[in-house]
Amino acid sequence: MNASETIAAIRADARFAKAAAQLAADHDRTVQDVITLTEIPSPPFGEEKRAAAYLDMLKAHGLEAVEQDEIGNVMGIRRGYGNGDLLVVAAHLDTVFPPGTDVRVRREGTKLFAPGVSDDTWSLAVNLAFIRALDAAGIRTRQDILFLGDVGEEGLGDLRGVRHFFEKSRYRPKVRDFLTVDSPQVEHIVSGGVGSRRYRVTFRGPGGHSYAAFGLVNPMYAMAEAARGLAAVEVPKSPPTTHCVSVVSGGTSINAIANAVTIEVDLRSASAAELQRLDERFLKIVDEAVATENAARSTAAGVITAEIARVGDRPAGETPARSPICAIAAAAVASEGYAPRFEFSSTDANVPMSLGIPALKVGAGGRGGRAHSLDEWLDVEPGESLRGMRTTLATILALAGMEGIG
Amino acid sequence: MNASETIAAIRADARFAKAAAQLAADHDRTVQDVITLTEIPSPPFGEEKRAAAYLDMLKAHGLEAVEQDEIGNVMGIRRGYGNGDLLVVAAHLDTVFPPGTDVRVRREGTKLFAPGVSDDTWSLAVNLAFIRALDAAGIRTRQDILFLGDVGEEGLGDLRGVRHFFEKSRYRPKVRDFLTVDSPQVEHIVSGGVGSRRYRVTFRGPGGHSYAAFGLVNPMYAMAEAARGLAAVEVPKSPPTTHCVSVVSGGTSINAIANAVTIEVDLRSASAAELQRLDERFLKIVDEAVATENAARSTAAGVITAEIARVGDRPAGETPARSPICAIAAAAVASEGYAPRFEFSSTDANVPMSLGIPALKVGAGGRGGRAHSLDEWLDVEPGESLRGMRTTLATILALAGMEGIG
Repeated sequence: MNASETIAAIRADARFAKAAAQLAADHDRTVQDVITLTEIPSPPFGEEKRAAAYLDMLKAHGLEAVEQDEIGNVMGIRRGYGNGDLLVVAAHLDTVFPPGTDVRVRREGTKLFAPGVSDDTWSLAVNLAFIRALDAAGIRTRQDILFLGDVGEEGLGDLRGVRHFFEKSRYRPKVRDFLTVDSPQVEHIVSGGVGSRRYRVTFRGPGGHSYAAFGLVNPMYAMAEAARGLAAVEVPKSPPTTHCVSVVSGGTSINAIANAVTIEVDLRSASAAELQRLDERFLKIVDEAVATENAARSTAAGVITAEIARVGDRPAGETPARSPICAIAAAAVASEGYAPRFEFSSTDANVPMSLGIPALKVGAGGRGGRAHSLDEWLDVEPGESLRGMRTTLATILALAGMEGIG
Repeated sequence: MNASETIAAIRADARFAKAAAQLAADHDRTVQDVITLTEIPSPPFGEEKRAAAYLDMLKAHGLEAVEQDEIGNVMGIRRGYGNGDLLVVAAHLDTVFPPGTDVRVRREGTKLFAPGVSDDTWSLAVNLAFIRALDAAGIRTRQDILFLGDVGEEGLGDLRGVRHFFEKSRYRPKVRDFLTVDSPQVEHIVSGGVGSRRYRVTFRGPGGHSYAAFGLVNPMYAMAEAARGLAAVEVPKSPPTTHCVSVVSGGTSINAIANAVTIEVDLRSASAAELQRLDERFLKIVDEAVATENAARSTAAGVITAEIARVGDRPAGETPARSPICAIAAAAVASEGYAPRFEFSSTDANVPMSLGIPALKVGAGGRGGRAHSLDEWLDVEPGESLRGMRTTLATILALAGMEGIG
């Protein structure tokens, strides 16, 4: 069977209909779960409370081996009848919002307003709904399904939860496929993981009076040389690769040569090889800029140095468009009448993609918007929400090997 | 008579001896005056209180036409017997210290500690001592002597007091020579006025996401181009000419192209022509940097612009080493056994120098240090202080034409 046939077979099965009916019957509970979880603050590097609550929910859903790992991820197994190979179904626990943000949910009709409600708290609740639906329908799968609530997806979290999972977890050798359920819209499938390297570079020098010490090396000019050097680097359009000197600061007074000038730099690519090439090029540019300034002016009072701190590192990767996981996800999305679109982004799926593990970001169902803003919203109108949930449930069942299908 | 002979004649005169004796007899009062004036805060652009006190002191010293001009300078005339030509003897009222600075004077032996005590409050008090000494000795001069307490010498004050005097005062056509008494040490004579132009340049652009909007123009790179352009400008060692990109800031987030990047730039020269040349070159560099960036990347979302604000403008000038005023000042300094040194600096004398009026910065006598710092100090030990005061009094008398000499 090809992917479309597999999805069609799953959707035609009476057990799938029963699971879908359970999702519908359970919808109010799923909505209650997203409200409960959203109202537990989960700022970057502060996911503990939400993780503890989610751990209890995973236990209450009857999963096996429910646990929290060293970095804070929580997880549990829905056992399959196969050899223990795994499908990971993840959602991230963290939000972008700092401690103290008002996370109370305001409801207007079917719309819920709250920071983090759609990115990615909704997916945490929907993954629980999937477990209940599978259980109610008595569906067994060949593969084990590991439900994962992970930390550190956003910003400076730098994907540390999923990164840790793939570096340290005993499950790592068993993972065959990886889905991160992230944001509502199911038609946006992310199959390309944009990687990034982020640097903070501080150029230092002896400083001095702008007039009396004229002729001494100036970290401002080393910075300028490096910035122009990076600006001139040509990068491919495909795989998309970008660079940016984003933030700059330095100097204390208009009549003084600066002691220090700092830049923040963002390098990205959908290709790990291109990202590595860009990264090496940038570090060389910094070295050369320092050498150029030390050669251009006097070092009698001291030399220019560059202190390079890597402040972000997200691996790049891509799940090939022709791979089975892409075909299955696209077929599931199309089966509900959506037009699937494969996109590049930076999500938890970056990590398995970078390791060559088939991985996608898929949607939880429903509609949402204004993610990362204080007026973030989620529409849990049942028709659209359940249509999306069925889509992703079908993808999960195809990947995990629904008993009796195929 | 040459300058040395003139100074020798003045010093040999019984009236000069009487004046010197008066300075010595009056020393405690002079010290009390510097304490009184120092303890009246006189921050940049906030000289009103000290100016009012000094105005009263000028009146109490019997000067004529005591007044305050529109910009805040206070002044009065010690009338001569000539045609009304003038020698200006100035000291500046302002300090570098912001409002709220503790300006109380702490005394340890002959040392006074307080912000501004030596730069330039001591000179305000010493100029009053000169008036008392001249009066006590019955000394008349051919030229009128205008005693001036001026505002805005420091930093962003940008010499506005003396600048205003030379632009607007009715005395302007009568000024033959200009002395600013600034800081204690008399052996440091400033005959070269280092001019400066200071700019704040803000490069602006459309901004955007570092990844999604990659390829748009970036004000960071226009800034870098301009900074490197200025760094590469070659300037003469003599007259000393310098440039510096001193302060930089811009950008908001590591994952965003900056909307704005600002630099502060300091250009200086002892030559007005060199300063003008450097200034024009810099403005051209900014224009070219903007054009280069607009040509290098996409302007689809908007172009890079540069907003140029001139935040400082001090005219350059030089009183030629062979001019009579230099010869007189050097002879007076040497007559007390000091080794005169002619230096370049930026003082109130810049303004008359730039107009071709013979002008110098001379010392008030005594020793001081740590100017512009909170532990600024002044040593009023009588021997050294009076030796310096006699030096500058002799210079004043030679320039103003002491009756019966030469």
